[in-house]
Amino acid sequence: MLRSPINHCKQCGAAVTYRVPDDGDTKKRAVCPACHTIHYENPLNVVGTVAHWGEQVLLCKRNIEPRYGKWTLPAGFMELNETTAEGAARETDEEAGAQFEMQGLFTLLNVARVGQVHLFYRARLLSDQFNPGSETIEARLFTEADIPWDEIAFRTVKETLEHYFADRRRGDYGVHTIDIV
Amino acid sequence: MLRSPINHCKQCGAAVTYRVPDDGDTKKRAVCPACHTIHYENPLNVVGTVAHWGEQVLLCKRNIEPRYGKWTLPAGFMELNETTAEGAARETDEEAGAQFEMQGLFTLLNVARVGQVHLFYRARLLSDQFNPGSETIEARLFTEADIPWDEIAFRTVKETLEHYFADRRRGDYGVHTIDIV
Repeated sequence: MLRSPINHCKQCGAAVTYRVPDDGDTKKRAVCPACHTIHYENPLNVVGTVAHWGEQVLLCKRNIEPRYGKWTLPAGFMELNETTAEGAARETDEEAGAQFEMQGLFTLLNVARVGQVHLFYRARLLSDQFNPGSETIEARLFTEADIPWDEIAFRTVKETLEHYFADRRRGDYGVHTIDIV
Repeated sequence: MLRSPINHCKQCGAAVTYRVPDDGDTKKRAVCPACHTIHYENPLNVVGTVAHWGEQVLLCKRNIEPRYGKWTLPAGFMELNETTAEGAARETDEEAGAQFEMQGLFTLLNVARVGQVHLFYRARLLSDQFNPGSETIEARLFTEADIPWDEIAFRTVKETLEHYFADRRRGDYGVHTIDIV
């Protein structure tokens, strides 16, 4: 999701100009010539889970663009007034209708090219029954051997799955920080 | 830094209305009645370092509001087109003018009340000489015993320092996820 540029001031509606503000900043920002508001654009967090049931993990087949029909870990944009773990749990509930308990942070993946940080938590499923929401065609469990590796929606999901199964074999789950270039 | 509300559409400048969009969303958003743009507001990441020199860590005395004159770890808002670690390094350079090499992620702190996630990395200082920028009155090293605990600018900084010295004593640095309530 690339962002559309700022054309107008969100405070007063005037057309903005792009320039380096006079406050010691070094970067061009959208600045309002009328009310002088400076508009900052910052990275977005995407939060989700690796929800596991025995040897299997939960994937969701996307019912929305981008990557319609591809498989993903349940994840979405973090909202105001929630923690990273609360957002990850909310997305897992919304997209898969899963029953689970949250565990530790597992991956932090920087996707600087699109201004995003993806954060995945491990979660222990309490049931293998799912009730997927409108953004999901199908929610189901996969063993490592069954994962549709060529049909994974995002590189951050593929990297997280690879680290998950590697750590699972080793019997020790770390926190992995990864840059997607 | 609490955000000001969205009054006008950043695309076309029309006055927005707050309502739940018709796309399956469940939350009220600022929606443009003229061009139908939906404006999302999401948490901001603050990135910084625990930069250490032997038994000492680097703190900066703030030359800006909020918390003018209080001590902080070098940190600031993550920008587009950088990773969390690159942002943490940039802020350490800008605020302290320090020479260092980056190490691993150390704390992830949720401050849901203000819609922020703070991320601190450990960094090994290569010099004990600093060249602070305009946002910093003074940059200097403190041992644990010398830290001005009552003059620390932010709770995320205090928590990160406490975990740092505890891990240092133990000789093993983890990744700590903390909710500030």
